[in-house]
Amino acid sequence: MNISEITKQSGKVKVNGWVHDFRDIGALKFIQLRDSTGVIQVTVLRDSADPKIIEEIKGLPKESVLEIEGMVQENAKVQSGMEIIPETLHVMVRSKPELPISVSEKGVTTGLAKRLDYRCLDLRKLKTQAIFKVQSAILEGMQRYLLNDGFIQVFTPCIMGVASESGSEVFPIIYFDKEAFLRQDPQLHRQLTIAGGFPKIFDIGPAWRAEQSHTVKHLCEHRVCAVETAFIKDEYDIIRLEEQVIIAALNNVKDKCQKELDTLGVKMTVPKAPFPVITFPELYEILEKKGKELPEDTDLDADADRILWEHVKEKYNSEFYFVNWFPSKIKPFYVMKRDEDPRWARSIDLNYKGMELSSGGQREHRHEKIMQAVKEKGMKESEVHWFTQFFEFGVPPHGGFAIGIERITQKLLDIENIRECVLFPRDTERLVP
Amino acid sequence: MNISEITKQSGKVKVNGWVHDFRDIGALKFIQLRDSTGVIQVTVLRDSADPKIIEEIKGLPKESVLEIEGMVQENAKVQSGMEIIPETLHVMVRSKPELPISVSEKGVTTGLAKRLDYRCLDLRKLKTQAIFKVQSAILEGMQRYLLNDGFIQVFTPCIMGVASESGSEVFPIIYFDKEAFLRQDPQLHRQLTIAGGFPKIFDIGPAWRAEQSHTVKHLCEHRVCAVETAFIKDEYDIIRLEEQVIIAALNNVKDKCQKELDTLGVKMTVPKAPFPVITFPELYEILEKKGKELPEDTDLDADADRILWEHVKEKYNSEFYFVNWFPSKIKPFYVMKRDEDPRWARSIDLNYKGMELSSGGQREHRHEKIMQAVKEKGMKESEVHWFTQFFEFGVPPHGGFAIGIERITQKLLDIENIRECVLFPRDTERLVP
Repeated sequence: MNISEITKQSGKVKVNGWVHDFRDIGALKFIQLRDSTGVIQVTVLRDSADPKIIEEIKGLPKESVLEIEGMVQENAKVQSGMEIIPETLHVMVRSKPELPISVSEKGVTTGLAKRLDYRCLDLRKLKTQAIFKVQSAILEGMQRYLLNDGFIQVFTPCIMGVASESGSEVFPIIYFDKEAFLRQDPQLHRQLTIAGGFPKIFDIGPAWRAEQSHTVKHLCEHRVCAVETAFIKDEYDIIRLEEQVIIAALNNVKDKCQKELDTLGVKMTVPKAPFPVITFPELYEILEKKGKELPEDTDLDADADRILWEHVKEKYNSEFYFVNWFPSKIKPFYVMKRDEDPRWARSIDLNYKGMELSSGGQREHRHEKIMQAVKEKGMKESEVHWFTQFFEFGVPPHGGFAIGIERITQKLLDIENIRECVLFPRDTERLVP
Repeated sequence: MNISEITKQSGKVKVNGWVHDFRDIGALKFIQLRDSTGVIQVTVLRDSADPKIIEEIKGLPKESVLEIEGMVQENAKVQSGMEIIPETLHVMVRSKPELPISVSEKGVTTGLAKRLDYRCLDLRKLKTQAIFKVQSAILEGMQRYLLNDGFIQVFTPCIMGVASESGSEVFPIIYFDKEAFLRQDPQLHRQLTIAGGFPKIFDIGPAWRAEQSHTVKHLCEHRVCAVETAFIKDEYDIIRLEEQVIIAALNNVKDKCQKELDTLGVKMTVPKAPFPVITFPELYEILEKKGKELPEDTDLDADADRILWEHVKEKYNSEFYFVNWFPSKIKPFYVMKRDEDPRWARSIDLNYKGMELSSGGQREHRHEKIMQAVKEKGMKESEVHWFTQFFEFGVPPHGGFAIGIERITQKLLDIENIRECVLFPRDTERLVP
């Protein structure tokens, strides 16, 4: 039985958990017993308890693992209004008395680096437990929506024989006697899966960036829910699909994680479709009104992101918004340009509370256009031939997006540092535990 | 609309697909239109069709992508008993006429290596499409069962700061200025997630083995559904859980993929729990009766596997069976030994039609026992300290397993080579596409 399931009417219960706190004041001994769902008081009365229990809990260290059977009874003095009076109590595992970091959430001042060093203790906090329950509910919501909509779950390769996309910021692998790389984004192989005749696919898995970024929003290893679909009319089909995936994810959190949201003190709202879409030409005007000039053919900078986010909050009262019509010059070769004005791309970003959550859009499926873009970008045909060759053999219009799982968790829960949204984060310095 | 959804009563339909075949016999032109679900005949009558259609399909190459609107009508001469008479027909993408490999399934004699070189064309075959729909249904069945049973989906690191387990057969990564490795199995971090207070978790993701194996059952990159759970009584709790995960996966295939099973000519049965469990002491006797001697403290060889599989078929009429009580000497340091006779481990393999599908069992959670095993295995304490240190702070009894996703697909569908169960396989030679 989970601790959160115990009610005053539970009667006799059997629970497992960790010693969150232990106070021995002679005649009374109080154990705060914790599992991943909550904390309950276990009260041992010296004069009426089984002497074996008294013996068992002598000098009981915090974080020891217990198995307890006992009666639930009301106790107005404790926060939950109830306590367990144990009939049997077994110390399954006795912890070392000195903990390197505290698992208590009261007055914790341990820095993040040290907390991550001792992550297994840090993860035991109810707030941390809640983060990962919410993350699992996000994933469940996305997957259920996609499967119900006829998508199938696939896996595309993590190991690339050729450095993907930009070629920079990839981790090299020693692959027997060959050179290989970890993918930055599974997007090229998602396109090849579409070229392989699969109309609707999603791939949930890792992606890596060898970026020397020491920020609160970058990781060297992260996860994406990457979706690709064929026979689209244009990139607005992708926008409409991505909205529904986000809404399904957040609805599932709302349905299943109210207790976790309470633990984290988060009030969430599920957005309504359609989300606002701002094109680059519109965006220049919005920025200009605020005295911000964005040079042509450059990406949004932090300042522009902030102004845009303020604008969206004010005008649309929306936490989510898309940016469309990115300048083609700053986008990779596989992105489709707009027919009416190829300066702009059918490339979209989804932003959540001012942070980029996902990139996507319509991909170029016409072989001659792809080869033209390869030339324009100054790339060698021989380097992309492994990919481009398949577009000679009938690849339908398609597009997709990849949502950063840690980022959506971070923004939904208003967590300052993205490392809190990964069980065991990997960054420029951290490779263990 | 999918081609498989079209019935004789459909009336007017709009479909997208690839030209599977095209025959132009003057007055009559037949297009076999294929999507991921099936093939339907599109019949164009020279004398009554829109001249624009006649023009559009002149010299139409196979694998071109079409969009067709038209009426469904009965035609007893075609296999499906119906055809489409197009009112509009648009060639969305014209394929190059010469295909490097055939997409037709009739009399295909192209070798696997060449098929994998041109995987995007190979994937378009209805049989290949069916394999990945079944794989997706396997995953869906597993995930739904686990979520309903209170498990949460997590992600553990792919990049290890220390070579995991054996140290051999790992792919090294250049991680900035540090040395790192791709995980062989997410099992150590699953244990650390349990140590982090999560009672029930699963992690679906990649694992890598730098093995010089050129067999039909080995891949350098594969996927596992890895499950770990705490507060177990012993490894039989793991066995009972794994059975249910397998049954849920196969039930979902049976419910959702009858058409795909028919396409592949596969008759499947969903097993019933409990699956037979054979311990090593029993296994020595079974092998001895067949004149096979397995040396002490060695793993099963191919011969032993075959004999055991014959025995199980005969005695239990079961496609699945567990092997338990592996010799502790051949198992890693983190595996729990049996209390009553530490020569044997609480280590289980699940076999499916004679092939190992999964390894698992109960892990050692007691710090002093882990450190004793580290010593016995001749490992350096300093190398495993990053992992073992957390077991000083109250880690409950736990265990788990990791099911190879490609292997369960392969065995369920009786596919000879495991590479057919990966979209874009990675082996000792293959890194593209």
